[in-house]
Order: sequence, then C-alpha cells, then structure tokens
Amino acid sequence: MKLASYKGGHDGWLMVVANDLSVWAPATDVAPTLQYALDHWADVEEDLRILSDALNSGRVKDVEKFDTGNCSAPLPRAYQIADGSAYLNHVELVRKARGAEMPPEFLHDPLMYQAVSDPILAPNDDIVVTSEEYGIDFEGEVAVITGDVPMGATPEEAAAQIRLIMLMNDVSLRNLIPAELAKGFGFFQSKPPSAFSPVAVTPDELGAAWQGGKVHLPLICTLNGRVVGKPNAGVDMQFDFGQLVAHAAKTRPLRAGAIIGSGTISNRDRAAGVACLAETRMIEKIETGVMTTPFMAFGDVIRIEMINDKGASVFGAIEQRVTRQS
Amino acid sequence: MKLASYKGGHDGWLMVVANDLSVWAPATDVAPTLQYALDHWADVEEDLRILSDALNSGRVKDVEKFDTGNCSAPLPRAYQIADGSAYLNHVELVRKARGAEMPPEFLHDPLMYQAVSDPILAPNDDIVVTSEEYGIDFEGEVAVITGDVPMGATPEEAAAQIRLIMLMNDVSLRNLIPAELAKGFGFFQSKPPSAFSPVAVTPDELGAAWQGGKVHLPLICTLNGRVVGKPNAGVDMQFDFGQLVAHAAKTRPLRAGAIIGSGTISNRDRAAGVACLAETRMIEKIETGVMTTPFMAFGDVIRIEMINDKGASVFGAIEQRVTRQS
Repeated sequence: MKLASYKGGHDGWLMVVANDLSVWAPATDVAPTLQYALDHWADVEEDLRILSDALNSGRVKDVEKFDTGNCSAPLPRAYQIADGSAYLNHVELVRKARGAEMPPEFLHDPLMYQAVSDPILAPNDDIVVTSEEYGIDFEGEVAVITGDVPMGATPEEAAAQIRLIMLMNDVSLRNLIPAELAKGFGFFQSKPPSAFSPVAVTPDELGAAWQGGKVHLPLICTLNGRVVGKPNAGVDMQFDFGQLVAHAAKTRPLRAGAIIGSGTISNRDRAAGVACLAETRMIEKIETGVMTTPFMAFGDVIRIEMINDKGASVFGAIEQRVTRQS
Repeated sequence: MKLASYKGGHDGWLMVVANDLSVWAPATDVAPTLQYALDHWADVEEDLRILSDALNSGRVKDVEKFDTGNCSAPLPRAYQIADGSAYLNHVELVRKARGAEMPPEFLHDPLMYQAVSDPILAPNDDIVVTSEEYGIDFEGEVAVITGDVPMGATPEEAAAQIRLIMLMNDVSLRNLIPAELAKGFGFFQSKPPSAFSPVAVTPDELGAAWQGGKVHLPLICTLNGRVVGKPNAGVDMQFDFGQLVAHAAKTRPLRAGAIIGSGTISNRDRAAGVACLAETRMIEKIETGVMTTPFMAFGDVIRIEMINDKGASVFGAIEQRVTRQS
C-alpha cells in the first residue's frame, strides 16, 4: 500500500497512490489525515488496503493523475523525528578527514539525534536558506514511521511497529555544525527542516527489497542533473531499523507517527558515489588534502529517488531547489 | 486567560480555568483542543477570552471544580520542544564542578537542544524509569508556547508571538548524559519525556510579573515534602524568551504550538536553593569535594509550582512520583 498527503490545511489530506505511481485517489472517507490513520491504524488499515487494492485493479472511479507538486510530505508536521547515523562509512569519513579515529563503541551504540519535526518540507518545496555561507548540503536517507512502541522494546518488537517507509532529505548547514556541536547540546540551527518523498509505503510493498529491517535498493542522488551517487541502502547499514527504533525507545515510549531516519546512506564502495556533498569533500581531503567540491549554491537542484529492480520509482522523487530567503 | 486540557483521546479537550484555579469549564465549543486553538488563534482568541471572562465573573453554568488529576499537559503531544539553558549559573556550576571554565560566547549565544515532544507527561503522571542507576533528576523550568514565528525573526518579533506560558519539569537521566554528549549528537536517551503544569496562561494574566520576556516569580521546588529551592525565574536569566524563541527560529520558521523552554531556573544567590539535584551535587563537590545528595529514587515525589505575590498558585502544580518500569 502506498500513501501520500494532498497539500492542504496543516496536515494535508490522505490519499492512496497506485503502486506504479500513475494515479491517486482520496482516502479521506477512511481517515482524513495520515496522522489520524496512524493514530487509529488497527481500525483503518484494512479499509485503506481495500481502497488501495481497488485502485490498483482499476476499480476506483474518483482518480486523478498522481502529481508530486500537489503533495505535502506524507506527514507535513510530525510529533517526533529522531535521525540515526547507521552508515558508519559516513561517520568514518568525516572523522578521518579531521584525523580522528571512530570510537569502537560506535559499532554497537547507534548515533541518533532529535530533529525538528515541524515544519516538514514537501518533496518539491524550496530549501530556503539565509546565506550560502552556511554550507548548504543534502543528505539522502531512508526513514520509517512507527506505530506505538513501548519503552524498552526489543529490536524485534520495534521492527514489528514499522508502519511506513519513506525517503528523507536531511538538509544540513555544514558550516554551522562545528560551533554548534562544540557547545555540547547537539545539532539545532545546523539542521533546518527536512523533506520527505511524496509517497510512504508499507513494508510489504517493497517485497524482497525489505529484508532484515533494511531497504535493499539504490538511492539515486542527482545534483543539477548529474548523478552524484547511487549507494544501496541495504549495504553497510550497521544498524537495521528495528535496532534504530529500539534505540529511540530505550527511555521513552514512541507514539504513532514517530519518524526514525537512517542517517546518510553511504557505501564503502567508492564507485557507489555519495548521498551528501560533505562526503565528496572528505574524500577529496583524504586523497588530495584539498576539498574542491563546493556545498550547494542558490539555484542548485537536488533530486533523491529510489529505483526498484524493475527500474520504477518506489516513493516518487524528492526534488528541491535551494533559494535565498527573501 | 488560563487554559488547560482535560485528559482524553490523543490531544485532550480544551478547558478554560478560573484565574484562581477554583473551577473550570469546557471550551470545546470554541476549539476542541489546544493545538486547534493555536492553529486558529486569530479566529478563536476573542471567543476564548469572552468565555474566560464569563467564567471569572461567575456567569458560566457548566463549571466543575478544577482538578489537576484530570489534566493532561496543556499540549499532551506537541510538534516541537526546544529547550534552552538561559540561567548561566546552572551552566557555570556544572562546568566548575568538573574544573572547566564557561566559554565567553555562552554570554551571547544561547544553549538550546531539540527535545522529545511526544509523549508529554501530565502534571501528575509518574516518571517511569527502568533503573535508578540512570541518575534520575528533575529540572524546574518556565516554558512558552508560540504562534507562527517566521524564520529570522528578531527577538522583539519573536516575543510578540508568545501565546502561553507554563511550567516544565525537564526530567533528566544524569548518568546517561556524559556518554551521550561524548558521542557529539546531544541529548537523546538522557532526556525522557517532560511534564508540564496543568495550566497554561496568556502573558497578560501574569500582570507585572511578566516583564522583559521573563517571569519575575519564584519557582517552588519541593522534594518529598521538603522545599529544596525557590529561585526567581526573573533573576539571572541571561536570555529572555524573545531571545530564546528568536534563537530557535534562526534557520527555520516555528509553527503554532512550538514549545520553548528556559532551562533549569538557577539563581546565583545560594539562599534561593535549587531547581534540580545536579546543582546541589555540584555545589557539594565544589565546596567539599564530595557529592553526598543522591539523585531521585523510586517513590520520590517532586512538586514544582509558581506562587504569585498574593501567595496563589499561578499554573497549578506539577507533582510527580518516580516509579520503576513494570
């Protein structure tokens, strides 16, 4: 089942999307918003699946051509985003570039930070920034939306509460990060709102590509029309989503609608390219001593999309332009 | 105007509360929930004030005795909590105890972290923790709820968007903090859900006690029936709420319902006592070399309340027992 939110109000309006992303139809008779559906999942899931099946077999009359431009994020505002950093190649590169080793405990204790969850950018929203001096970067990630997860859930229990999967662009202001992390309280101004893919899908929709709590598909990152990376999200992910959700739930329950991100997808195979510019710059520094690739400039366009083994887009594309705050 | 939420559903039901906290009445005919009211403030504020005035002059028939036990937090879940650390005495003490100076930039650059905003504990909810070994502590704070704040708002513009004021118990797991901060990503597992006072009040309700974006009243913190502190929230607050909200909005807009916390209230005058146990322990370490006061144990009860110049409770009391996760 594929779900999306039609732009409108504070929380959008729930839509079901055909699995080939050709058409969509309102699901508001079942649940007005995605947050409502998540809050009442046991009551609405079956009806949503019946509607989805009908849509996919051409039995729904009230359909429109699917249009990413009319999509908000699946959740245009959420009660919680916790973003992990499960691809340790990314962490190792960042540290290596500044001559630091990765602490061994990072192999079994996930990195995770609390991220802003309101506003959440639509897949085609501009990335509005005050200054290019902030070091504007994208980060291509996979994220899940959970149901209710009790405090202290095991990774297996946590994995069973994964309701939906999406793509995420964790926009980062790199040049604000060092001073902010030095203060000791983590990211804040350096992590402005993130964007999500137009479509969120149930795990079963991914078929064999969803295995062991990971999405085994490449994430295609295209900057100004040029592919800069296609790392596979199932490769080199140190912690699967069950582990990440359980980490988030260690000292708190998670409630329906919590979003947990994977961190920047990053493969050790350099041929896979990158899902953020910081990594390109770190590799340049390690290999040549000089970072030559700049961060994003006003007008730059980043496209993030995941392609299945049939060559089809699974979640629709995030495609955003960087613009100056007017 | 004083508002509260009656426990029920995911978001409670909006109530107006008499300014002496004697009675309350449903406001659901105006706005079903506080989040709805904040989302539609320009449309509902006048009607809420009319209802509040009627309640305070005894002209509302459908009243009940105000009952903190039936209160959820004013917002039982929120889209954002950002918690500052505006009382630098607290920061200085923590650093001094470990032999570190406070960086001079802390005088003009607020500390702030993104906190969990779902779930939010009711004022009488237990603080449920897995282990006393985590170092369970309370932190007495003031917090504000904002309307929409544009990105890059000045402190003055930000201050104008402060809709409501509450008390906050920022529960902290002290022994999880050092390892978590060492990872560089800030607090996560060390900051479980916070509780808020039963009542949120509009700034005008505070009269002369609301001045310069600060609440000039003492916060009474009582642990197991013994007053451990009564620091004045208007004293030694390095950054007022306008500055804190503007800091939060530097690289993102804030949307209606964002909660911004002050950080642990802390006065340089030692006679004022403390609003968290960590500070007692730091003072012991600085003065004697040994921390003798333990953190909270299962069964301990913390009460946090603010008293106005007439001796009346302004927000009602947060009163919570620490319990072991069953």
